[in-house]
Amino acid sequence: MSTMNLTLLTDLYELTMMQGYFLNKTNETVIFDAFYRTNPSNGGYAIVAGLEQVIDYIKDLRFSKEDIAYLKGLNLFEKEFLDYLSNFKFSGDIYAIKEGTVVFPREPLLKVIAPIIEAQLIETAILNIINHQSLIATKASRVCYAAKGDSVLEFGLRRAQGPDAGIYGARAAVIGGCIATSNVLAGQMFDIPVRGTHAHSWVMSFPNEYSAFKKYSELYPDACHLLVDTYDTLKSGVPNAIRIFREMQASGIKLKNYGIRLDSGDLAYLSKEARKLLDEAGYEDAVISASSDLDEYLIDSLKAQGAVITSWGVGTNLITSKDCPAFGGVYKLAAMKRPDKNEFIPKIKLSENTAKVTNPGNKTIYRIYIRGVGKVKADLITLADEKIDEEQDLVLFDPVETWKKTKLSGGSYTVRELLVPIFKNGECVYTSPSVMEIRDYCQSELNSLWDETRRFINPHEVYVDLSDDLYLIKRTLLANLGQEKNL
Amino acid sequence: MSTMNLTLLTDLYELTMMQGYFLNKTNETVIFDAFYRTNPSNGGYAIVAGLEQVIDYIKDLRFSKEDIAYLKGLNLFEKEFLDYLSNFKFSGDIYAIKEGTVVFPREPLLKVIAPIIEAQLIETAILNIINHQSLIATKASRVCYAAKGDSVLEFGLRRAQGPDAGIYGARAAVIGGCIATSNVLAGQMFDIPVRGTHAHSWVMSFPNEYSAFKKYSELYPDACHLLVDTYDTLKSGVPNAIRIFREMQASGIKLKNYGIRLDSGDLAYLSKEARKLLDEAGYEDAVISASSDLDEYLIDSLKAQGAVITSWGVGTNLITSKDCPAFGGVYKLAAMKRPDKNEFIPKIKLSENTAKVTNPGNKTIYRIYIRGVGKVKADLITLADEKIDEEQDLVLFDPVETWKKTKLSGGSYTVRELLVPIFKNGECVYTSPSVMEIRDYCQSELNSLWDETRRFINPHEVYVDLSDDLYLIKRTLLANLGQEKNL
Repeated sequence: MSTMNLTLLTDLYELTMMQGYFLNKTNETVIFDAFYRTNPSNGGYAIVAGLEQVIDYIKDLRFSKEDIAYLKGLNLFEKEFLDYLSNFKFSGDIYAIKEGTVVFPREPLLKVIAPIIEAQLIETAILNIINHQSLIATKASRVCYAAKGDSVLEFGLRRAQGPDAGIYGARAAVIGGCIATSNVLAGQMFDIPVRGTHAHSWVMSFPNEYSAFKKYSELYPDACHLLVDTYDTLKSGVPNAIRIFREMQASGIKLKNYGIRLDSGDLAYLSKEARKLLDEAGYEDAVISASSDLDEYLIDSLKAQGAVITSWGVGTNLITSKDCPAFGGVYKLAAMKRPDKNEFIPKIKLSENTAKVTNPGNKTIYRIYIRGVGKVKADLITLADEKIDEEQDLVLFDPVETWKKTKLSGGSYTVRELLVPIFKNGECVYTSPSVMEIRDYCQSELNSLWDETRRFINPHEVYVDLSDDLYLIKRTLLANLGQEKNL
Repeated sequence: MSTMNLTLLTDLYELTMMQGYFLNKTNETVIFDAFYRTNPSNGGYAIVAGLEQVIDYIKDLRFSKEDIAYLKGLNLFEKEFLDYLSNFKFSGDIYAIKEGTVVFPREPLLKVIAPIIEAQLIETAILNIINHQSLIATKASRVCYAAKGDSVLEFGLRRAQGPDAGIYGARAAVIGGCIATSNVLAGQMFDIPVRGTHAHSWVMSFPNEYSAFKKYSELYPDACHLLVDTYDTLKSGVPNAIRIFREMQASGIKLKNYGIRLDSGDLAYLSKEARKLLDEAGYEDAVISASSDLDEYLIDSLKAQGAVITSWGVGTNLITSKDCPAFGGVYKLAAMKRPDKNEFIPKIKLSENTAKVTNPGNKTIYRIYIRGVGKVKADLITLADEKIDEEQDLVLFDPVETWKKTKLSGGSYTVRELLVPIFKNGECVYTSPSVMEIRDYCQSELNSLWDETRRFINPHEVYVDLSDDLYLIKRTLLANLGQEKNL
């Protein structure tokens, strides 16, 4: 997270509502769920990311004197409320799904249990961070899936939506499966691999392409990847590259990590023709890498056309998730403690769209796997205190089309609870893994999905069902609200 | 700009190329142009923004000890190059088009004249900043155009691609025409207005909608905008709002800044029905504002359907420029000084796509206005030392379809040079205006366009032509390269 303090990174209405609760002497403990409703890019899943930055943000929450002075100048806030803010510290609990986990719509990715004034403040920044990084991690996992085991490098910094989008986008892209980024600052901050070759300007700054390649090969003989499309890929770039490789060998260099990069034109055709030229010259192990407006669909198509590219530099379309540049996470009130009793009252938000009606109450999520296979069968959202006995039969039903039921026999499945404690009474109780550890975990998560869920067109939907107890609470709340609509 | 130092916010290849030039003892002065090729969202223009942050970035360039240690650890860089970096300071010149200016494809938005090692480092961050802010400023200008003078508020922080995208996106949105943002940190940093009402959670945290509205009206009687769609907009939300307005009047409050906000459902239908209910109750001046996945196309459509909304809160689709989330700016070598002489050699990058061939040389841009009308006629890219005499006839020709010519009679037009000096010999010689000043300037810029250029579908293209001298250089370079292709 940038060293700028982000306490004021919130919507104004969070602060006006906070003051409202404060002056109204309402500060009951509430539960807010952060969740999303639709998988990005019409996919079958998402990858959640950004938790480490949410933790940093929560830890750093404090209103400086300058912040208080600024808020005072807006002429919206009372002195006693500003005094409260000057001593603000988050005191609540946060549960979250670990970064790199495969998730599905309507599951709480993060659950805040805190006095309402505190829980309200943090809505905007939590959504900003989780929405961004989950979007890019998901996109990266799709691009890597299309690349079928080839290396995918994140090259998008210059087209990212501002510095943070480049920095945290690179982090999320590596979590989702990229092997490296071109972004040096992200490399430094997160200890992730950085990679790069040279630009057209390198070639243009020399008298000709050959002398530019020559100098580059002398400087970087151990990673000699030459950009061949400055003037003419097949007539100039590839022949010059081959001449260089010959001269390197002649001077006693053993070629190992070397090849060419294509950055424009018809990549299917050019890669096949370049492969022929390289192979004829005896350079069968020269890598052909490509960049140029790539995304999962284009890589998929190039693979289908027999393009012989084995390393992909993906920029704009990954770092902005171009076909779907927003994740759509929301933060909704799920329960509120009764002032007089130590008991949560579940809360629900209606909508004319059934899928948009929220799930009330204090909840958790169980992921259900097919025992011995390790693939995901379904997820089950339950009340937080429900337990599942893996030896008992388990009946799942669709929460909208409730007649759709599946019975899992005891012993045929295993379960894992997805929400883990992150903050307890305002103290962080969780240590974030390194980005490369999260990347490894994410790979195993992706392997727990069937290919039918990962495909790009009409992916198979993993069911996210509700427990009987949760469904009953939801139905009761809906029935009561139906009677009270015209208050 | 965030207080994190952004010197390492660059692609790795910039650093490996820099070392290449350094070890090769090549450090000629070069000219790089930052420009874009296609208007965002198939529009007829763009708004350039981000210059103030580019200036901050250039001023702050320095490699810390930690940066040098990190680079050393990559095992790519020689000690003498790292020593050079520890003393790095930008020593060149930068020219740029002022923020808030209307711009067109292929015009240099920013021109760097510096030793090649320095000019290479700053490519990535300059593009990142200008690409992002120009994208959002352009989008905001489109949304405001659709709103036809109604207020447009930037509400997208929670869906922005990371904190910076929210912060600098809000800045750019105000430059492009938004009257305010919900983002408190952006309000503090740039002294721009902040606005907001309340969320569904406010309503849900009270026993019922009426009591939530009641408390809100007591707290904020001077800005009582009530969100009416938590349960049922027309059966519950609007009647409760009217009841509150009545009670406010009964208690002696003079209603001025008040109204309702719609955040879901059919905004055309709901706004008309809500208007009827408000008018029948005598609240003809209650404002109906709306939010909910708005963009320029939806606002245009709602206006055409007779929606009676006069204030628009625009989130996701503005802050991500959803239909076109990348600006596509590039940074290309245009000239290089001859080592022995004080003279620039123009440079060109070829492409199989004619429109992608770069414009060589040291250039400037003149905007040509129809005298007395103040509307833009065309832009003319010339060599930097060319002058235009407004009293002489001026013949413009299309640089691709050169038979398309237009003659402007002397005295019928005026010209304005767009590039202004920002840095001279590494020192900043420019003072950025305030964001609200830039916003005013941008409004006048937008007024210099005909409506035909601002429309969303098939906008009229403003011609960007080349001077005779520049065209001749370009043609000569192309002819020479044609002969040298197979080096």
